[in-house]
Amino acid sequence: MSAHDLIPLSPLLYLPLVHTALAEDLGAAGDITSDSIIPDTTMVRVTLASRQAGCLAGIDIAEAVFKQVDARLQVEKFCKDGAALCPGDTIAIISGPARAALTAERTALNFLGHLSGIASATARMVAATEGHKARICCTRKTIPGMRALQKYAVRAGGGANHRFGLDDAVLIKDNHIGVAGGVRTAIARARAHAGHMVKIEVEVDTLAQLEEALLEKPDIILLDNMSNDMLRDAVRINNGRAILEASGNVNLDTVAGIAATGVDLISVGALTHSSACLDLGLDFDWAG
Amino acid sequence: MSAHDLIPLSPLLYLPLVHTALAEDLGAAGDITSDSIIPDTTMVRVTLASRQAGCLAGIDIAEAVFKQVDARLQVEKFCKDGAALCPGDTIAIISGPARAALTAERTALNFLGHLSGIASATARMVAATEGHKARICCTRKTIPGMRALQKYAVRAGGGANHRFGLDDAVLIKDNHIGVAGGVRTAIARARAHAGHMVKIEVEVDTLAQLEEALLEKPDIILLDNMSNDMLRDAVRINNGRAILEASGNVNLDTVAGIAATGVDLISVGALTHSSACLDLGLDFDWAG
Amino acid sequence: MSAHDLIPLSPLLYLPLVHTALAEDLGAAGDITSDSIIPDTTMVRVTLASRQAGCLAGIDIAEAVFKQVDARLQVEKFCKDGAALCPGDTIAIISGPARAALTAERTALNFLGHLSGIASATARMVAATEGHKARICCTRKTIPGMRALQKYAVRAGGGANHRFGLDDAVLIKDNHIGVAGGVRTAIARARAHAGHMVKIEVEVDTLAQLEEALLEKPDIILLDNMSNDMLRDAVRINNGRAILEASGNVNLDTVAGIAATGVDLISVGALTHSSACLDLGLDFDWAG
Amino acid sequence: MSAHDLIPLSPLLYLPLVHTALAEDLGAAGDITSDSIIPDTTMVRVTLASRQAGCLAGIDIAEAVFKQVDARLQVEKFCKDGAALCPGDTIAIISGPARAALTAERTALNFLGHLSGIASATARMVAATEGHKARICCTRKTIPGMRALQKYAVRAGGGANHRFGLDDAVLIKDNHIGVAGGVRTAIARARAHAGHMVKIEVEVDTLAQLEEALLEKPDIILLDNMSNDMLRDAVRINNGRAILEASGNVNLDTVAGIAATGVDLISVGALTHSSACLDLGLDFDWAG
Amino acid sequence: MSAHDLIPLSPLLYLPLVHTALAEDLGAAGDITSDSIIPDTTMVRVTLASRQAGCLAGIDIAEAVFKQVDARLQVEKFCKDGAALCPGDTIAIISGPARAALTAERTALNFLGHLSGIASATARMVAATEGHKARICCTRKTIPGMRALQKYAVRAGGGANHRFGLDDAVLIKDNHIGVAGGVRTAIARARAHAGHMVKIEVEVDTLAQLEEALLEKPDIILLDNMSNDMLRDAVRINNGRAILEASGNVNLDTVAGIAATGVDLISVGALTHSSACLDLGLDFDWAG
Amino acid sequence: MSAHDLIPLSPLLYLPLVHTALAEDLGAAGDITSDSIIPDTTMVRVTLASRQAGCLAGIDIAEAVFKQVDARLQVEKFCKDGAALCPGDTIAIISGPARAALTAERTALNFLGHLSGIASATARMVAATEGHKARICCTRKTIPGMRALQKYAVRAGGGANHRFGLDDAVLIKDNHIGVAGGVRTAIARARAHAGHMVKIEVEVDTLAQLEEALLEKPDIILLDNMSNDMLRDAVRINNGRAILEASGNVNLDTVAGIAATGVDLISVGALTHSSACLDLGLDFDWAG
Repeated sequence: MSAHDLIPLSPLLYLPLVHTALAEDLGAAGDITSDSIIPDTTMVRVTLASRQAGCLAGIDIAEAVFKQVDARLQVEKFCKDGAALCPGDTIAIISGPARAALTAERTALNFLGHLSGIASATARMVAATEGHKARICCTRKTIPGMRALQKYAVRAGGGANHRFGLDDAVLIKDNHIGVAGGVRTAIARARAHAGHMVKIEVEVDTLAQLEEALLEKPDIILLDNMSNDMLRDAVRINNGRAILEASGNVNLDTVAGIAATGVDLISVGALTHSSACLDLGLDFDWAG
Repeated sequence: MSAHDLIPLSPLLYLPLVHTALAEDLGAAGDITSDSIIPDTTMVRVTLASRQAGCLAGIDIAEAVFKQVDARLQVEKFCKDGAALCPGDTIAIISGPARAALTAERTALNFLGHLSGIASATARMVAATEGHKARICCTRKTIPGMRALQKYAVRAGGGANHRFGLDDAVLIKDNHIGVAGGVRTAIARARAHAGHMVKIEVEVDTLAQLEEALLEKPDIILLDNMSNDMLRDAVRINNGRAILEASGNVNLDTVAGIAATGVDLISVGALTHSSACLDLGLDFDWAG
Repeated sequence: MSAHDLIPLSPLLYLPLVHTALAEDLGAAGDITSDSIIPDTTMVRVTLASRQAGCLAGIDIAEAVFKQVDARLQVEKFCKDGAALCPGDTIAIISGPARAALTAERTALNFLGHLSGIASATARMVAATEGHKARICCTRKTIPGMRALQKYAVRAGGGANHRFGLDDAVLIKDNHIGVAGGVRTAIARARAHAGHMVKIEVEVDTLAQLEEALLEKPDIILLDNMSNDMLRDAVRINNGRAILEASGNVNLDTVAGIAATGVDLISVGALTHSSACLDLGLDFDWAG
Repeated sequence: MSAHDLIPLSPLLYLPLVHTALAEDLGAAGDITSDSIIPDTTMVRVTLASRQAGCLAGIDIAEAVFKQVDARLQVEKFCKDGAALCPGDTIAIISGPARAALTAERTALNFLGHLSGIASATARMVAATEGHKARICCTRKTIPGMRALQKYAVRAGGGANHRFGLDDAVLIKDNHIGVAGGVRTAIARARAHAGHMVKIEVEVDTLAQLEEALLEKPDIILLDNMSNDMLRDAVRINNGRAILEASGNVNLDTVAGIAATGVDLISVGALTHSSACLDLGLDFDWAG
Repeated sequence: MSAHDLIPLSPLLYLPLVHTALAEDLGAAGDITSDSIIPDTTMVRVTLASRQAGCLAGIDIAEAVFKQVDARLQVEKFCKDGAALCPGDTIAIISGPARAALTAERTALNFLGHLSGIASATARMVAATEGHKARICCTRKTIPGMRALQKYAVRAGGGANHRFGLDDAVLIKDNHIGVAGGVRTAIARARAHAGHMVKIEVEVDTLAQLEEALLEKPDIILLDNMSNDMLRDAVRINNGRAILEASGNVNLDTVAGIAATGVDLISVGALTHSSACLDLGLDFDWAG
Repeated sequence: MSAHDLIPLSPLLYLPLVHTALAEDLGAAGDITSDSIIPDTTMVRVTLASRQAGCLAGIDIAEAVFKQVDARLQVEKFCKDGAALCPGDTIAIISGPARAALTAERTALNFLGHLSGIASATARMVAATEGHKARICCTRKTIPGMRALQKYAVRAGGGANHRFGLDDAVLIKDNHIGVAGGVRTAIARARAHAGHMVKIEVEVDTLAQLEEALLEKPDIILLDNMSNDMLRDAVRINNGRAILEASGNVNLDTVAGIAATGVDLISVGALTHSSACLDLGLDFDWAG
């Protein structure tokens, strides 16, 4: 088991959302098109392939969609989540009742395309920073209802997860500092109230704030919207004390430069709020 | 009441998702950062503004997020959904308990940024096709759980909605036609089984198929991946009989040319599966 | 696959309601009578038969009730939904643990009797209009929570479905027309706002209104509470342009006369809001 | 507070079903007809009246439907549940935004018509047995999901409730007796296992079984499908020991004769599984 | 089948709570410890044993927890609910994927320890009253969400259940009597309104109240906080007419004395609101 | 805002459980006793007081129970959560409709008594360790469905929270170490996979394991079942590097001795799995 293994998501974490998505698509009458046209006895063999280079995420969820619609559908998987995809790569072959396969198709692809899109965007960032220690990580800027799955997709793409919600870690931002009257008071209050099991991160905008924050020994310091020069200074000042996270103006053009400053993490909201879908296709083989 | 009025979404359609999103963010312990640092009595005045040009969608949902977290939060809205936004435009001012405002902030922005991103992408397509009759419309390529809201955002951007699920309209695709043994049989089967209250659309790839389909008088014909020349021929052949929808390779560069062919609708999956978030900001005024 | 085949309902559409119904009946303590009296090891063979002539609907749902209570219960089905039943006809034989069979019995029959009652009432109307093109259809006058299943039962009885909710088709009624200031404005507003994928129906009370409505080319026109003479005139005036639906004062005595006027559809609220349960019986064979 | 007062149902018992019913009707897009045609500012005054003689049940639930759709809708109620209605009686006046009133109308009527139908059928049975001590009561033959409300409607009609589920009372039927090997063993087993807080009822088909059952002192004895002569004998034999409930072949023609035998209760499955909807109407006053 | 058999709880009654408990523990990211450290292929054999003397309750629920986390986990059960446990007794052996076993462990034990704690406390009370007819029973003083399971645990310990909720039996307390103006009026009102299928219990504080209550023939009389002398008098006065339940100041020291007074039931709120967890242990055998 | 302030729980975190608890108690028929006996117009003034010394937790939740049953009930609170209670202390006065107050009473007390019982047990441990730096903290040994509320009650009692679920912190136990083949590998794997936002704790049984663990710099080390002498050695060896948590055999007699060893935290499963209910009483004043 190496550090690069992706750990599968428990079905307990995605099955409720699979039910929600199918309910959303089936409505009160179900798939009236396929029900009308496709005989109950017609079997099919469907090839799921990538039409784009990217990184796979969500194949077990897609499989669950097919199985929920009809347990007789068999899904043979050729790739695991986290796999690099080339255009044309076969991801899976689904066999069984054609009607059910058609009913499940769009919902399965909606999960798989969205999550693979996130994984692919993450993987591109990860590739762009290769050779640096900085890890790419996500934020709480997610699409309502999808957070757990989106964060899994970031892991599939080789990224790291930031906190999952307001409750599992402290992140002190400028507004908190403003109200508290200073970085040190803010950290002290958080430490006094939050449990010993949660990490404390504080956002700083200036190197002076950084030095002040370090006096309170936060676990992580978020360097927000700093130039690469400032980031380098921050790394030097920090001298290994806190984990340093950079954020702001991160894109494929800038990310390598940011990574080169020596920060530990680079967080990118766009991974989960603005990734384009990965283009996938289903090919139906009626002779199969 | 003009044709361009956007009709507000009933809260019954979005409140359940607001609860889901807040539960996702609050977890079991709530906002441990703000709870620790912000006194219960601190009040704040927050200005929500756009940082980008675009089109607003979801302001009532964002308001509901704030009100669900604390009913004492007041939301003064300066723009309605569907409004064009310039960078710097003030969208709303939220006043009340600072702790609650900070707790609600991210969830409110996650809804508003995502939906406004979709509305903005739609509005750009709509603007690009101005002067043509073709309307921009969405597909079922949506993010699980978000379909009703995403389709509303398309309307906010001036677009039209395609069907909402597998159950409210018939859409006969190539695979259905393949199994049925031809366009005409497929349409006939659908008409025999589907209710008289649902429209029937059929996807065709060639002009021959189009002519064959027209014999069965479907309500809509989807012209998939045709060149603009073929689309023009299709419009001529159709001669006003069916509603014509074009799809495939639609983007801001190609959409005007497609609209110029005379089709009635242009459907774009990317509006809902790949729109980037609109950049919005919250500015906290502690003296307010 | 003929036009008369009934398409089975996806379990995804009825399993949630099966859980609701069992929860309602089991409460917090379960079947205290059978639990107390029937040893866990007693097996039984139960014959489900009709005690009345009618039309079957819901047999897969009844089977699901038995299987949810105890997966060891086997249900051998001798009739499919849509089948005509004579008194005494065996519908299914359930075998397995007696305690579970007794626990599931009432809930299974509550679904099956109610839905078969609707199917039977529909089938009687369908039979009464044989030889005419008019199809019998249902309305939104359904019992809360049961709409999707009741509409399926109407299909099982040979009827057609009207819209499933307020969202999947436009139906302009007298009050809408009153507010809009006329039939034509009302239709125009609906067409401007509603998607191209939804049909538009308008209700008219007079022939003058019918003529006015036809100018806007609605998909369907609802002729409300018209005499058969008026209906015949309406059919003549319409001359095949819109689909014509008659409603009001429809019962087994009047329906053939209405059908003879040449309308396309006859909608009957009573099918779903007032159908009596079909009388079914379970016979327990302890020697089985 | 007299014995004839109807006790209102707690909103906690019906609000979840109101949400279910509205979700069912609004779907993903809401009331596209009213939204398109009725301006947001149009106000209306709607009179809810009975078109049939009967008994009211569900007016608070109907009010809740209107309030859930739009809290600005005001519902002035002129009748309480349990009230006798004559054709033309005004039940309530709803005032406020017209769009919301139209959206809520059908769901409100679906509850009110169904429950009032049950109350009315019950009230007719109660009236037919006036002068006798026998009370009319319902069964577990209810429509899935609606049991609590249907049983309330029976109370509104002056009837009594039988058990609410398998868990709140013991009812030993012929199959239980068959497996146990006799009435006495069956009752003894039930008494040994069921709590002291639940009543025990046993169904008997013959007078011999009745005498045997009485030896075990059940709380209630169900006399199933007995002739009136047998019922009279049963009343004599029982001599006030157990509560006697008659069932089978009960309708408006037979119920008085059954009541005259001196039984304590007459249970009627048809009240909840086969009652027709009460005909109610809404009249919209646009000048109001 | 003897009176002392414990009847298993239907999975329909506990599976929803198993899902709730697992969701509570898994959060959005699942078991990050086991996922990180335990290879997917590692198998384990876990022995579940008691570390304390007591009475088992919830073993099927614990099994369901393991199976829900991973259907490949096998649970071999050596004891049934209701079994007396000695320290060291093996209760079950769980075999299969180690990662899933570790993920499920705490949730399974939380159910099993809590329910077995209640069963054990009940069994101790039952043992302390051996030789007397008085049965030990529970109350509505339960932990929110756990009532059905806690009441099952009381049965497992040999106790009896009091009512399950406010709806399945009448219990008239001092405050009801105060408002009604006397015991007799209170009972009469309850009898007039409550169905014939529910039992009526009345709480009395004095022997005078007892005599007054007996005139109305309630099913059960609750003797609250009476001395043993008063209880003995109450038993004599009652002379077998009502079921007599004693409550107040019941503990292992006092319960035998109370039972010796001849009351039928002794109710103990502490069984469900204050029982300590039974100490259970899981032993992992990696060579298994 | 001091470190000792208890931060109120967001209603979003407890309202769903309030609904669950009321649904559990009201069943399908509601409070049939109070509904039958208490006129709708009777008002009452109820005093909620402590009958025992302890620490309050859950007063806002109890208030929510009363308000959910009837919004007209007014709750005047005299104590806040976290307050020390003496026998006889008035906690709150509830005024309004008597029927609703009686319906809500038991559910409100079930929350308040259980949570105050946990807070009180915690407060006793906290008091017993006064003067030492060690904080008392809870575990994941909670009652299914109640974790968030139980952990809040621990905070109300002055305790600290351990992790909330399997997902928000890493806790490496003996079994994980066994599979990994050693403490160091286990920590390394967890660090490689778990996000930088989660803390890592490792359980050790011996001082050798402690020294080995310290080489990997975990955030927290759990010293399981060590003697006070060993704990003192551990504190010395650790020398301020990791946070040290002691567990095992913690009770009111032993806790001060453990605290005196210098550990940072003492975790006690019994706080949440075995605390007895705090005895609270409601006193009804009908003249109020």
